[in-house]
Amino acid sequence: MKACGVIAEYNPFHNGHAYQLAQARKKTQADAVVVVMSGNYVQRGEVAIIDKWQRAQMALDHGADLVIELPFAVACQPADRFASGALQMLATLKCSYLAFGVEQDNFDYQQFIAQIAPKLQQQKFTIDYSKTYATQWNDFLEAELGQRINQPNQLLALSYALANSQLAEPLTFVPIERIGAEHDALQTTSEKFASATAIRQLLLAGDLTTAQQYLPADLTKLSHHWLSWSDLWPLLHYQLTVNWPASLVDIYQMSEGLEYRFWQQNQDSVSFADFLQKVKSKRYTYARLRRLALYTLLNVRTTEIVAAQKQLPQLRVLGFNQVGQDYLHQVRNQDEIKALTRVTADLGKPDGELGLQVRVDRLVEQLTGHEQNFHQRIIIKH
Amino acid sequence: MKACGVIAEYNPFHNGHAYQLAQARKKTQADAVVVVMSGNYVQRGEVAIIDKWQRAQMALDHGADLVIELPFAVACQPADRFASGALQMLATLKCSYLAFGVEQDNFDYQQFIAQIAPKLQQQKFTIDYSKTYATQWNDFLEAELGQRINQPNQLLALSYALANSQLAEPLTFVPIERIGAEHDALQTTSEKFASATAIRQLLLAGDLTTAQQYLPADLTKLSHHWLSWSDLWPLLHYQLTVNWPASLVDIYQMSEGLEYRFWQQNQDSVSFADFLQKVKSKRYTYARLRRLALYTLLNVRTTEIVAAQKQLPQLRVLGFNQVGQDYLHQVRNQDEIKALTRVTADLGKPDGELGLQVRVDRLVEQLTGHEQNFHQRIIIKH
Repeated sequence: MKACGVIAEYNPFHNGHAYQLAQARKKTQADAVVVVMSGNYVQRGEVAIIDKWQRAQMALDHGADLVIELPFAVACQPADRFASGALQMLATLKCSYLAFGVEQDNFDYQQFIAQIAPKLQQQKFTIDYSKTYATQWNDFLEAELGQRINQPNQLLALSYALANSQLAEPLTFVPIERIGAEHDALQTTSEKFASATAIRQLLLAGDLTTAQQYLPADLTKLSHHWLSWSDLWPLLHYQLTVNWPASLVDIYQMSEGLEYRFWQQNQDSVSFADFLQKVKSKRYTYARLRRLALYTLLNVRTTEIVAAQKQLPQLRVLGFNQVGQDYLHQVRNQDEIKALTRVTADLGKPDGELGLQVRVDRLVEQLTGHEQNFHQRIIIKH
Repeated sequence: MKACGVIAEYNPFHNGHAYQLAQARKKTQADAVVVVMSGNYVQRGEVAIIDKWQRAQMALDHGADLVIELPFAVACQPADRFASGALQMLATLKCSYLAFGVEQDNFDYQQFIAQIAPKLQQQKFTIDYSKTYATQWNDFLEAELGQRINQPNQLLALSYALANSQLAEPLTFVPIERIGAEHDALQTTSEKFASATAIRQLLLAGDLTTAQQYLPADLTKLSHHWLSWSDLWPLLHYQLTVNWPASLVDIYQMSEGLEYRFWQQNQDSVSFADFLQKVKSKRYTYARLRRLALYTLLNVRTTEIVAAQKQLPQLRVLGFNQVGQDYLHQVRNQDEIKALTRVTADLGKPDGELGLQVRVDRLVEQLTGHEQNFHQRIIIKH
């Protein structure tokens, strides 16, 4: 059996994602489509609008054969680390292809890697501390490619390409042109397709009728507690209120005086948006600051991330159908890979393989009332 | 000038308190009535229903000449530490008398001290770990006095007596019989007097009309954001959710495995009352557990309490009238005592004399929107 891998957040899973999965299967003729998906927290530093189980169910209902959870220590990271952690998981899962949505599908990733890889090894391009890492990376790409890359999916694809080039057995890239919606676009431009960002806005605004037209899943069957920073802000505000800056320095990525900035600006902030604006500087992107806010909220320590990263690649199964189960079986027979299909007390303890995952998910359990780990069985799609 | 001291919480200040202040002045013929009052958190491990400034204002409006704040490190403590910290402050303030409300005013405190003090020095009476400290203390008193002391004010008075006996210059005790209401009584038994507990229940239930008849202050002039554990529970619930038990052990008084008990029982608790019932055992009183919950909520570390207690006695002035100001002036001339009349940046920093106070008060600022320290001027009653 041959598999095509997909890296996803599905926040939420929409018609464009279903289209992409169908295209991936068609273009690659793979026997199985394997998705590694962020858990309850996503790359840009937010809680996912719907929990990981409902999102995995949607993926299995609409084209995925196997859904594996991207661990928190990979999922809530800058694009380069996100890409390299996810690619390693797909490599462990013996995927032959990587299918990904992109604004235009005629880019030559092989040639790109051949061109820039040696330069990246020679030079550090992050030297200007008045600019964000993202800006400098984009400047570097512009100089190399002779054009500015402004499309977020294209940028992410370049990170995938770089991460892929580090693998012993790189995957074959299968770019799939996105249809009907720009990534992050707030305007919905088609009757059937809209970006996840636009759909989240509709859901949070309570416009379920409009949102429904972009979603393959029946909204009435989903939990209607849409999670967002609105739920989390009072808790972050409190956490920053009862700490001194000095006791925030153990938080992962809390460096360069950001602990003081966070603490100081929290005092007069009236909302999360207000807080983010106040802490923003040229040096940091909003995504970086949102992730740092999330680490603070979840009390994620540097030591925990270091320990969790040592457990990678980690294969936590969220669900499969018969094809996915067979494929996983084949991979496990080949390599004696450990797949985690249930959370035992041992896995979930503080220093257990899923300890960090269990801890950060507890907040989602508190907010939604839905079990996320110990008593949650994996989804078996018939 | 001679002064009579009063130890109070005024949670909230009611007609019984006004009566007590009038009686204190009358019985002692003191020139000044000096009150040391808990700040925003009270002895039984709760946030005060109204902030310290409004409570100090009420006291000054109805019989007090000078109001000093009982620091958090004294106010949120078991009766014995509460009593000894408060008595030390009144001694520093050169008070000649201690007036206190009590269920019956014919008890001989001098004789009581003479009888039990030597025994307390010889024996440790807390040896039975299946009973709370309070129960054992009460058993000891019963054995000594030949009768069970069940009245909370009387019990507190015995703690005052013990603390007083440790002072170089003990104060003269002036018991004042409480009228119209048992302490903690939920039933209101008179047209004008009710316990603070009963009044808090009325306020939290929104029955301001009934509450008003027991209060000398005009309720319409007070902030109507009545604080209670209902405001704090979601925050405590979150805090216990995002920590492992091991990271709770630095919390003040978190001992004997209570960190695991707190963490474990938090998971399925739906309210603060539910949580308290779940963590309760014969070993600990509800007050002890509520205080521990408060320390956890406020992230109060053992090291902070130790440091704060080294700053005692600390005289933070909340307000005065002309008599109170003159009296404070006289005391300061006599002894070069430092009175803190405003919170400077230096006093309020993490290791400053008011650092802990400033930090714990920030949560009240967050919940009420009212400044508690830096920009708050002391009350000058004309």
